[in-house]
Amino acid sequence: MVDYQKTIEEIHESILREENKGEIASYIPELAQVNPEKFGIHLLMANGKSYGTGDSKTKFSIQSISKVLSLTLAYKSEGDSIWKRVGVEPSGNPYNSLVQLEDHKGKPRNPLINAGALVICDILVSKFKDPAKEFLDFVHSICSKDNVGYDMSVAKSEKSVGYRNIALCYYLKSFDNIENDPEEVLDFYFTMCSLEMSCENLSRAFMFLVKDSFKTTNNEQLISPKKADRINAIMQTCGFYDESGEFAFMVGLPGKSGVGGGIVALHPEKYCIAVWSPLLNKKGNSYRGMKALQQFTTKTESTIF
Amino acid sequence: MVDYQKTIEEIHESILREENKGEIASYIPELAQVNPEKFGIHLLMANGKSYGTGDSKTKFSIQSISKVLSLTLAYKSEGDSIWKRVGVEPSGNPYNSLVQLEDHKGKPRNPLINAGALVICDILVSKFKDPAKEFLDFVHSICSKDNVGYDMSVAKSEKSVGYRNIALCYYLKSFDNIENDPEEVLDFYFTMCSLEMSCENLSRAFMFLVKDSFKTTNNEQLISPKKADRINAIMQTCGFYDESGEFAFMVGLPGKSGVGGGIVALHPEKYCIAVWSPLLNKKGNSYRGMKALQQFTTKTESTIF
Amino acid sequence: MVDYQKTIEEIHESILREENKGEIASYIPELAQVNPEKFGIHLLMANGKSYGTGDSKTKFSIQSISKVLSLTLAYKSEGDSIWKRVGVEPSGNPYNSLVQLEDHKGKPRNPLINAGALVICDILVSKFKDPAKEFLDFVHSICSKDNVGYDMSVAKSEKSVGYRNIALCYYLKSFDNIENDPEEVLDFYFTMCSLEMSCENLSRAFMFLVKDSFKTTNNEQLISPKKADRINAIMQTCGFYDESGEFAFMVGLPGKSGVGGGIVALHPEKYCIAVWSPLLNKKGNSYRGMKALQQFTTKTESTIF
Amino acid sequence: MVDYQKTIEEIHESILREENKGEIASYIPELAQVNPEKFGIHLLMANGKSYGTGDSKTKFSIQSISKVLSLTLAYKSEGDSIWKRVGVEPSGNPYNSLVQLEDHKGKPRNPLINAGALVICDILVSKFKDPAKEFLDFVHSICSKDNVGYDMSVAKSEKSVGYRNIALCYYLKSFDNIENDPEEVLDFYFTMCSLEMSCENLSRAFMFLVKDSFKTTNNEQLISPKKADRINAIMQTCGFYDESGEFAFMVGLPGKSGVGGGIVALHPEKYCIAVWSPLLNKKGNSYRGMKALQQFTTKTESTIF
Repeated sequence: MVDYQKTIEEIHESILREENKGEIASYIPELAQVNPEKFGIHLLMANGKSYGTGDSKTKFSIQSISKVLSLTLAYKSEGDSIWKRVGVEPSGNPYNSLVQLEDHKGKPRNPLINAGALVICDILVSKFKDPAKEFLDFVHSICSKDNVGYDMSVAKSEKSVGYRNIALCYYLKSFDNIENDPEEVLDFYFTMCSLEMSCENLSRAFMFLVKDSFKTTNNEQLISPKKADRINAIMQTCGFYDESGEFAFMVGLPGKSGVGGGIVALHPEKYCIAVWSPLLNKKGNSYRGMKALQQFTTKTESTIF
Repeated sequence: MVDYQKTIEEIHESILREENKGEIASYIPELAQVNPEKFGIHLLMANGKSYGTGDSKTKFSIQSISKVLSLTLAYKSEGDSIWKRVGVEPSGNPYNSLVQLEDHKGKPRNPLINAGALVICDILVSKFKDPAKEFLDFVHSICSKDNVGYDMSVAKSEKSVGYRNIALCYYLKSFDNIENDPEEVLDFYFTMCSLEMSCENLSRAFMFLVKDSFKTTNNEQLISPKKADRINAIMQTCGFYDESGEFAFMVGLPGKSGVGGGIVALHPEKYCIAVWSPLLNKKGNSYRGMKALQQFTTKTESTIF
Repeated sequence: MVDYQKTIEEIHESILREENKGEIASYIPELAQVNPEKFGIHLLMANGKSYGTGDSKTKFSIQSISKVLSLTLAYKSEGDSIWKRVGVEPSGNPYNSLVQLEDHKGKPRNPLINAGALVICDILVSKFKDPAKEFLDFVHSICSKDNVGYDMSVAKSEKSVGYRNIALCYYLKSFDNIENDPEEVLDFYFTMCSLEMSCENLSRAFMFLVKDSFKTTNNEQLISPKKADRINAIMQTCGFYDESGEFAFMVGLPGKSGVGGGIVALHPEKYCIAVWSPLLNKKGNSYRGMKALQQFTTKTESTIF
Repeated sequence: MVDYQKTIEEIHESILREENKGEIASYIPELAQVNPEKFGIHLLMANGKSYGTGDSKTKFSIQSISKVLSLTLAYKSEGDSIWKRVGVEPSGNPYNSLVQLEDHKGKPRNPLINAGALVICDILVSKFKDPAKEFLDFVHSICSKDNVGYDMSVAKSEKSVGYRNIALCYYLKSFDNIENDPEEVLDFYFTMCSLEMSCENLSRAFMFLVKDSFKTTNNEQLISPKKADRINAIMQTCGFYDESGEFAFMVGLPGKSGVGGGIVALHPEKYCIAVWSPLLNKKGNSYRGMKALQQFTTKTESTIF
């Protein structure tokens, strides 16, 4: 039987001994100040057992990882109608590319690239009076409050320089795929991305995608197994921007990364794992995080493939 | 417990009652003559039990499905060096697009689009004196001879009009990513695609990708579990051209389709299933085949997600 | 000797007899109300003789034609340094495409597509305290005041729905090719495009690009012959969006069109001619305007080629 | 009055004193052996006066310059029907790009990029029993025989490595825009490009595009003034690949370059000028040739703008 605590500690140590490469996401001024040596891993099993090492309880900006949560809230609230406005295909392009929108008349390829996440935000802005509050309540319902919240200084910092996301949102609007005022959608988008969570929080929050664990903190079923399947499928094919194929190939789990250096990944029958290390590789995914997950699924022989 | 025979028969019948939509792959003269009403399903379980219905024992042209087999032979023979010449990312473009090659200096996005399969063919042409014979021997080693072979009239028919594949091969050559004479590579490519197999043959042949079943007909281990994982990962993210995300979303299994109307898909721990119905949807995948597999994983609750 | 008055009247009449095809630029609410049957032609010779017919003295929104004037003001003020930020190549894409910016790292292909005109506006916003006033003074210096001015209701109308231009401006900002607040640049851009002039005004205003006529209303040399040459060259290769080649081919003069239905064209040694008819062809150029100019250069045998 | 002989000699000398930059077209083995220091200029006036300096009488491979001559022969023979199969718009892409064909369903943007020239060759292959002989006869009819002919060793050399052109031709065939056997079209294409002419020959041959000089060596009118206009317009907007705008901007004449280092340019009312220097800039146009022409139109104030 695998000693999971020992496994993640060994991985943590062996990676710490190697050079830490990559760049911090310096385009967001507030994120540029994060200590690049932070490194945490947290593992939560379907049976409820929990294992952590390193900075696994330190909160960080989850950034794009939040896109899976906003997608879940929208999918839960609006059902399959959301797929009229956003696709489920990998993009084969960088996360913030505007090019494919021109080819596809403003329908983003999937909900995990920035353009698609903006459309999902627009759906939530249309649905809820106070989408930021509603989204936070939703997050609390799946991971416990535990000080999980927005860092509005990060949200502001990002909006102040988020020109490409602003461009994307107006571009979508020009194709009539944003219903609300773009400024309102952008405000919610940047707020949502500023969510702060630790590896421990993340592994708990994404447990609703592990079979037989689809429960909120109130013990209610969050979404149907079919919907969970599909969110996992989208994470598998689209969760790592233009490195999604590589992640499936090297790690072999559905997952999602953020420019804050976090990655969450899960085996739909076994566990949810979250890692955090701020330096990013050229495709914008955590350098050490990718390594850690690759070693984990290799050692535990637990890819989904 | 699931009655698999009954399940696939029910699916077969219910789909037969609905309208059969789509187009036959008429651009290949020989394929255009296939009866569009053919429809077979074959399921092979990890425990060796086997279930078939409809035209499950009729041979058809597996076309692009053969690309997984040639990839396997090249990966087995040459190891990870093949990834220098071909990537593992979904393309976000039609199967025969030349556009991305220009952006990526002649390195195809993955081995399952035509450009990538041509590079794999070139690797096999470099490796083997008689690649067509070697490839067929390899196929026989995983599915029994059973009259499995090339249909050279299809190969010729396809070459006579395969201008875009010829263009792709010369284009790759212009980027120095074809080592041999393009004509020789194309001959092998069209021959390989002309392989004829039934659903029963296919489900047997792909069994080496189902865990604990990685054996040839001589009871030798074909490839390592790690390599099988990775081939499954590539099928998951790239197996259905520009509909790979949709297949992951709707069906939830690694798989591969061909313009002959065949699809093979598998659950890495449970089974391998093959379907065949010649009419293709707009993305080039079997209309009824997609439906059948979607119903199968829904009824049996057996996606990998 | 050509009777120019008779020539333009004959062209005007013959085109009036034919069906008037195309679409009005309805995406700008204020412009959608223009009478589609308006049709004017005005010709001004290098020797000062002037000929008009139809609605040649009615003012209309010159829209993109103003981009040549803002380019001229920037080129005159800043010299060749402007070419560091914008190119001189035809784009081969629609006027409002964002695609090429991604390929060229935010350097627009030329100053007559929207992206390039926004960069020119940014240069003028950096240069002048009140760029809208400065630009209008400049226009008055080359065509007489004569009630030539902005229509702020058109500017507002366009800004209220100009999502793609807003997207373009923020996109350029994301590449650091906009120095100022995008909102300020956009305000000036929409104001500049709202300039109202008649065919008579336009033919007078562009006379500075006809040799030996490079004079302002104060009899000062506006720009050097070399600079005039180059602006003419840019109009020739880039003045009609993705129909620039067609205009060179069919008409054979440097020129510029606007979505208000105006076109100005000139022979650098002989004359300047302006036409106006609001219905636009599929590429966004005046349907009747293109026809009138083609007939004019054919009848007078006066292309530059 | 301008002393043309002195002018071209001064330009020749001043450029010889500067560093000679760029790369020889080494991808064609036979061309790689050309002496990079060769440099000739020849000027032929509408009045018949002729001026030469440097290597103006040395023959070289005119390569893509021949595309204007094949276009002329096809336009003369088939009239405006050729425009159904090839456009007249600048491409905004490198000369050998395949990308735009995919967007435009196999209709090349213009007849001067490789794809367009292949379509023109196909038209001539359909028209003539022996297109290579017919084309050479046509060339002789406009420049005198004078040993002007093909260099079949260059044609063979180019075909042996011309993978991208082979790819282009099969790609066009896949869109049904090549009627004949691609191999036959390619043979004629490479033969046509191997034409050897001197600057003196070239300036004579293109004289049919200078007004009042539209005569063959038999004193027949070659093409109508309207057709000459249009060929000039196409050269102006499309003659220098992705540097056509720059050539219009810096030189200001219709013209055409070839990878052999030759450029021919003309003023439709005044003269035809040809230059040759083998080193090419990054866009594939002669480094010294561009400089020489820019100095010539500046000194003589004779752009068409």
